[in-house]
Amino acid sequence: MLQEPGDGSTIHCPSLRDELEARPSPFITHNYFGGGFVSDDDRVCLQSIKFATERSAGSKSQNNLAALRPIRISENARADTTLTLPDHAIRSGPRETIYHNPKDTHVAICTVGGICPGLNDVVRSLVHKALDYGVPESNVLGIRFGFRGFYDRDHKPVVLTRRMVEEIHLEGGTILGTSRGLPNVAGIVKRLDLWKIDILFVVGGRGGNAAAESIHRECRSKKVPCCVVAVPKSIDNDLLLIDKTFGFETAVEEAQKAILAAKVEASSAYRGIGLVKLMGRQSGFITASLAAGIVDAVLIPEVQFTLEGEKGLFAYLENIIETKGHCVLCVAEGAGQEMVDCLGEQAMDITGRPILKDVGLWLKRKMKAYFKDCDIKYIEPTTMIRREASIPTTAGDRVYCKMLAHGAVHAAFAGYTGITVGLVNTHYCYLPIPLIIQAPRKVDPTGELWNRLRSSIGQPVFE
Amino acid sequence: MLQEPGDGSTIHCPSLRDELEARPSPFITHNYFGGGFVSDDDRVCLQSIKFATERSAGSKSQNNLAALRPIRISENARADTTLTLPDHAIRSGPRETIYHNPKDTHVAICTVGGICPGLNDVVRSLVHKALDYGVPESNVLGIRFGFRGFYDRDHKPVVLTRRMVEEIHLEGGTILGTSRGLPNVAGIVKRLDLWKIDILFVVGGRGGNAAAESIHRECRSKKVPCCVVAVPKSIDNDLLLIDKTFGFETAVEEAQKAILAAKVEASSAYRGIGLVKLMGRQSGFITASLAAGIVDAVLIPEVQFTLEGEKGLFAYLENIIETKGHCVLCVAEGAGQEMVDCLGEQAMDITGRPILKDVGLWLKRKMKAYFKDCDIKYIEPTTMIRREASIPTTAGDRVYCKMLAHGAVHAAFAGYTGITVGLVNTHYCYLPIPLIIQAPRKVDPTGELWNRLRSSIGQPVFE
Amino acid sequence: MLQEPGDGSTIHCPSLRDELEARPSPFITHNYFGGGFVSDDDRVCLQSIKFATERSAGSKSQNNLAALRPIRISENARADTTLTLPDHAIRSGPRETIYHNPKDTHVAICTVGGICPGLNDVVRSLVHKALDYGVPESNVLGIRFGFRGFYDRDHKPVVLTRRMVEEIHLEGGTILGTSRGLPNVAGIVKRLDLWKIDILFVVGGRGGNAAAESIHRECRSKKVPCCVVAVPKSIDNDLLLIDKTFGFETAVEEAQKAILAAKVEASSAYRGIGLVKLMGRQSGFITASLAAGIVDAVLIPEVQFTLEGEKGLFAYLENIIETKGHCVLCVAEGAGQEMVDCLGEQAMDITGRPILKDVGLWLKRKMKAYFKDCDIKYIEPTTMIRREASIPTTAGDRVYCKMLAHGAVHAAFAGYTGITVGLVNTHYCYLPIPLIIQAPRKVDPTGELWNRLRSSIGQPVFE
Amino acid sequence: MLQEPGDGSTIHCPSLRDELEARPSPFITHNYFGGGFVSDDDRVCLQSIKFATERSAGSKSQNNLAALRPIRISENARADTTLTLPDHAIRSGPRETIYHNPKDTHVAICTVGGICPGLNDVVRSLVHKALDYGVPESNVLGIRFGFRGFYDRDHKPVVLTRRMVEEIHLEGGTILGTSRGLPNVAGIVKRLDLWKIDILFVVGGRGGNAAAESIHRECRSKKVPCCVVAVPKSIDNDLLLIDKTFGFETAVEEAQKAILAAKVEASSAYRGIGLVKLMGRQSGFITASLAAGIVDAVLIPEVQFTLEGEKGLFAYLENIIETKGHCVLCVAEGAGQEMVDCLGEQAMDITGRPILKDVGLWLKRKMKAYFKDCDIKYIEPTTMIRREASIPTTAGDRVYCKMLAHGAVHAAFAGYTGITVGLVNTHYCYLPIPLIIQAPRKVDPTGELWNRLRSSIGQPVFE
Repeated sequence: MLQEPGDGSTIHCPSLRDELEARPSPFITHNYFGGGFVSDDDRVCLQSIKFATERSAGSKSQNNLAALRPIRISENARADTTLTLPDHAIRSGPRETIYHNPKDTHVAICTVGGICPGLNDVVRSLVHKALDYGVPESNVLGIRFGFRGFYDRDHKPVVLTRRMVEEIHLEGGTILGTSRGLPNVAGIVKRLDLWKIDILFVVGGRGGNAAAESIHRECRSKKVPCCVVAVPKSIDNDLLLIDKTFGFETAVEEAQKAILAAKVEASSAYRGIGLVKLMGRQSGFITASLAAGIVDAVLIPEVQFTLEGEKGLFAYLENIIETKGHCVLCVAEGAGQEMVDCLGEQAMDITGRPILKDVGLWLKRKMKAYFKDCDIKYIEPTTMIRREASIPTTAGDRVYCKMLAHGAVHAAFAGYTGITVGLVNTHYCYLPIPLIIQAPRKVDPTGELWNRLRSSIGQPVFE
Repeated sequence: MLQEPGDGSTIHCPSLRDELEARPSPFITHNYFGGGFVSDDDRVCLQSIKFATERSAGSKSQNNLAALRPIRISENARADTTLTLPDHAIRSGPRETIYHNPKDTHVAICTVGGICPGLNDVVRSLVHKALDYGVPESNVLGIRFGFRGFYDRDHKPVVLTRRMVEEIHLEGGTILGTSRGLPNVAGIVKRLDLWKIDILFVVGGRGGNAAAESIHRECRSKKVPCCVVAVPKSIDNDLLLIDKTFGFETAVEEAQKAILAAKVEASSAYRGIGLVKLMGRQSGFITASLAAGIVDAVLIPEVQFTLEGEKGLFAYLENIIETKGHCVLCVAEGAGQEMVDCLGEQAMDITGRPILKDVGLWLKRKMKAYFKDCDIKYIEPTTMIRREASIPTTAGDRVYCKMLAHGAVHAAFAGYTGITVGLVNTHYCYLPIPLIIQAPRKVDPTGELWNRLRSSIGQPVFE
Repeated sequence: MLQEPGDGSTIHCPSLRDELEARPSPFITHNYFGGGFVSDDDRVCLQSIKFATERSAGSKSQNNLAALRPIRISENARADTTLTLPDHAIRSGPRETIYHNPKDTHVAICTVGGICPGLNDVVRSLVHKALDYGVPESNVLGIRFGFRGFYDRDHKPVVLTRRMVEEIHLEGGTILGTSRGLPNVAGIVKRLDLWKIDILFVVGGRGGNAAAESIHRECRSKKVPCCVVAVPKSIDNDLLLIDKTFGFETAVEEAQKAILAAKVEASSAYRGIGLVKLMGRQSGFITASLAAGIVDAVLIPEVQFTLEGEKGLFAYLENIIETKGHCVLCVAEGAGQEMVDCLGEQAMDITGRPILKDVGLWLKRKMKAYFKDCDIKYIEPTTMIRREASIPTTAGDRVYCKMLAHGAVHAAFAGYTGITVGLVNTHYCYLPIPLIIQAPRKVDPTGELWNRLRSSIGQPVFE
Repeated sequence: MLQEPGDGSTIHCPSLRDELEARPSPFITHNYFGGGFVSDDDRVCLQSIKFATERSAGSKSQNNLAALRPIRISENARADTTLTLPDHAIRSGPRETIYHNPKDTHVAICTVGGICPGLNDVVRSLVHKALDYGVPESNVLGIRFGFRGFYDRDHKPVVLTRRMVEEIHLEGGTILGTSRGLPNVAGIVKRLDLWKIDILFVVGGRGGNAAAESIHRECRSKKVPCCVVAVPKSIDNDLLLIDKTFGFETAVEEAQKAILAAKVEASSAYRGIGLVKLMGRQSGFITASLAAGIVDAVLIPEVQFTLEGEKGLFAYLENIIETKGHCVLCVAEGAGQEMVDCLGEQAMDITGRPILKDVGLWLKRKMKAYFKDCDIKYIEPTTMIRREASIPTTAGDRVYCKMLAHGAVHAAFAGYTGITVGLVNTHYCYLPIPLIIQAPRKVDPTGELWNRLRSSIGQPVFE
């Protein structure tokens, strides 16, 4: 039976401990270097800040958990429960007692959704740590092309040996391949059962975490004893509670280069306008993290804007062009969706996500009509950023990926399931999956990040 | 009077020497460091290779001048002349006798056309060398936004001091600004006369060189004693006779990164196809210079292709996807223009150049229909490459820009006009402008560059 | 009078509020964008982790504040006090009430110690935010070459205008210049008084923070009403309590490249040994943050080692060379100081810091004697890393620098003095200077960072 | 019998055609893509410039072949011959007739001397082109660690398959390993005979080419029918006649970064002096190719200098420090060797090369004594540059490496031996080895390169 969330002070994680046999960690007696173990009772604060009153800056932000309580968590398939969000989370790390016999453990690893810098780092470290526990090399399987590899006969799982993953962190993308699309949860669980997989790692974003949660529930429902542990991935940094997602830093770094290129182009042109569309379906973290001194205005999904009128975007830009001779505007792909005109119903993609209307091209067209004598340069570097191949990850992201992966393996051996791993207030934690995916994390229009950017560039409210 | 081309062995350059007063170079007596002067009679071979017979590889290439003779050069405004192309060109460098009095000389510098890595390096070195000759700082003018700055009252010329240009080579773009569009030649020459400009430097591509030639002719016709010297610029490397244009190397370097990104994306996707559109309106040098080992097929304007059929591109790619699981296709923007369907007449831009039809989007659509179960990733990094802001130029391009600029200043002081500066067989030369712009330089489909690429990647003829 | 530290639950910061006149923030009525103010009563947890027992991994680490209590803080010049370290710190940010009249406020900025990526970002943001408060441009002074500029007649302070600092964040180093050496505190305070400086910002490391503390005390003692606010800087990341110092990430990124270079060299040589000396006088954070997969062994100041003997470093490396054909060893400059033989007393530099003995050359000599047939390649990239000129800072470091600088300006206007600004558990705080400099922060030999590295590379204890 | 050099107009290359059987190229009938063959009678001009008189700038330079004639070439082991240097060289490329039966051909590849960006590119392309000719995969051997692999039993040759070399161009260094030291020529030829090697490729610098020449002669003398073809490698660009060596461009690019770092450091320090030691044992090409605008003075082996006195280096630097506040000095490792004081005789390394005295440390000591109040920052980035791991080669160098390798394979199949491949006046040629190694190529102190640098930075003669 799943453990229920706790007493109002710690958020508990589901586990299979009741069904599995406890045994001592292999690191007790031999090659685990120093440090010892983490206790199930070690705790990490979910919130490290206390606001004096709700007048304090940021107190109403989504990141202020106090503002969120009570919170609705999809506790199970039948009904949503309203929970009081507890104060603490369980700490990530190696446990003294484990619940799988490494020699008999079969592990599967799956990467789903869009590619993101660091995926191969995560895969590599998952394999390394599993082998460190003593899992035989022949028992670690890589599922090909997302969940598709569970049922596509042409793309059988591959055995991931230490040698195979040795240098994969130097390449971009994912050696396993990835794909989008709604998973066939029942089909996947059948394979997990058939292939006797004890531990499934799913590296994915909000969609991938939701799928992991569904697989976990189906496993519970079908009595398949498989621990499902997610590693959260989001180039947009749009997961709740977690300090930052891996790949995000690398993406901001690359986006910065694109903005600089737009600046150069715009300033070399006669009344040049640089228009840059960046990633960010529902949240504008990448866009909002850009350094000032280059962009003149920024549009994100979280903040509405108007184009025309005295206080509109265009009047503002016109003024900048008059002063500086050129301007640079940066727009997140999810911004202004309600304004972009399109015929009829909005289309959905195969995962049920709405297909975004192209705000970049729409803005370009609108600007061409308004700024008749300007030279508009449109750049859409999203693809270049997402793939970032030459320097796959920054050193910081690399260490982060490794720690997440190690934490995930420790969690699975500790018997946890239906959880995800994340950095919270600089410490690594285990969190029940529903907690971080209940809503996309958004830039707080009254918060630090957005106000810092706006005050740096002097951007007013376009209303 | 303009000098006439010579005796069949050396191509002479037009000059204003008959109209100007000769005087000794300032470098004779004081601060010119070593080396001495270049003689008007020093010669550079236009062709350093001799083919045994016309069966030798490359002998029929456009780069084999022997194959070109006789050649048509627009000798003057009245009529085209058929010339025998001579064997030698005049060497670039400082002359012992100069034809402008530096103290009274007024210089104007103008950058036209698209931006390209190295523009600021050229501007900086033009200014430096002019000041070295003894031109007063207040006499060196920068024309704003291409030729527009000659008649736009809002953008008067700026005085370019040593201090102003000190660090501009560390920035991308051009500090002068640039623009496209046909020049008002008569208007420009009126300003040159009014502002008493003795030397005009035009940094531009085929269009910019053609404009410089027209200005030179109008000056001759209106008796305006101004030396017009061009510095050739082309990110596409499409100028005849010249070893390479500046910015080209940097562009290939950047394009390489985009291709690598496409490779990562395609190989991470299920039956992934990376489709990359690169620069190259009429010649595919950038595309053809890409390293093998990444791209699987390449389409350039110089070589026709078919999509369907047994020997077509799609069958070929299908086969690669079957074998490797993914493929990467790279297309120059000017490729396959005759196939891209569009309604009615082809449009022209303001300079009279045909507006290219978008072969990238056309191919993407065609491929979506053909490769139904493939995941097509389309990248168009052109804009990122052209602006290349973070590392403005490679060290090699930087030295090249400086030498071109120095050569241009020496040419102007030597009284030459209507010429351009270029590297020919590793030596810097002066060439009459018409010589290098009579036709766009193209990748030779039977030559070394194209065959090296095709044999490396094993690409057949798509027919 | 200085405020005393509090009630055991919050660490208070000294201020000049009793001596200065309170007034409303200029951001109340006009251009402060959103977000509102931070309250003096907002709190940040100093420790966001709770260990179940002291058997939990990391519980005895220096970073576990519980393990540190009680802690000795140099409360004033007369005596050290033993304090109970409180649970919370004061939050950084703009206050509703300020204590300087911007129009009459004079600000001085000073960078001291070694250079580090991000210094110019900090200077730029200090200037910007001071001007945002309404300080006249002519009132913001940059002190040249560290504290030297307070008394060197040849290097008078410069006025820092918005225009002057506009693009300095794109350059490495510090535009103010820097220097080492013990400050003449009395002399400095005389100038602060003479020049009527109301706010002094000191950007520096442990030494620079200590100097700022001394200046603050001397100001108090001499009744000079100047708020002294430090911005902590350390390429080594060796400051207590603070999540990380700026420049550290950039440094690790660069160190990574050097290690990769050593790996290439060693693996191309016959029995090649790559020996790399990195930064880290007292703490080996940079060295310990290197990614595994490249280095085979790592030596840091915090961990002792032996060279010879069965369990020594050399026997271990010998074994790796036998297996892989080459090896890479990385040593922090402060490692093994007690073993490096030198004659007589250890020398001190002008600031009283011991001059480190060169462990790199010593190891190289020892290894040459031991590994007679090996090809030892020694690299010392420290200088290249420290100066990191081509990409001055990562996007992450850039935002961090800006937030620290803004926090420092808000602190000074809020009347605080003798404090430093830092990121604690992902939130920006104000901390009394003595708190963070009481001891150098060290890599915990039983902690996560060191054990992660050791387990990744399989390094035993060299004893 | 070896062919004798020719009639004064073309330099012939030795070959084994008399001893081998002619057969048609495999590319005639099947998969050679376009282009056709190169004729043995195709010619490339060795000199593409003609000086009017010897007063013309550069006419006395070492690069002016006219100035060199007559030239001494070590024609054979018995005696040196004085030759008239011919006007033309033989063109590189595929021949219609080949002299090895690919199916029975055994190939060995060897990399010797220091590592250099591009080595793996060359190895990869040698393998690819040999396989393209039809050599079986099992017949292509890689010799380990330079010539050592011919006789070291612990490091047997490795078979180089297409798969093995697939991605090696993405790594730095050389996968074969390298070593220095005089080769055991007799021993090597014995192995060539024993292992039935038909073609030996030696990738090396002046020393490696000299060794290849000795091996070729020993083969001739012992009647071992092996074609020895060299691929010239020199990070210093110090080979005669050849436009540039591979790796040189990449090295200049990296050196540029180090200089920039020194500039940042020096300008941040109080009276800072940046002193940078770069590569260049006998020729200062790298140092002399640095962009101006950063360095203030440059010392190369080809040009003498004095430190003290009114016209000395130190007085000059003192003046710059007074004006700018700091300075940057760059010195090639081989500069000023006659001045660096050392006791007794100069030592030789195992190859008989003199071990250079450390001019960098000597200068640093001298400067510390002279510039007492300056802050001297010494950087020695040589090791970082040589290994250049992150971006193994620029796109330009990569294509160059491939063309050299292809040319070498075509040469060997055409029966040539004792030759090297090089780019001359933008065309690829075959040259007898002695021609390019008779003397190190040097920067011409009266030539373009040196004068351009000196005039850019305003450096006088230090006498």
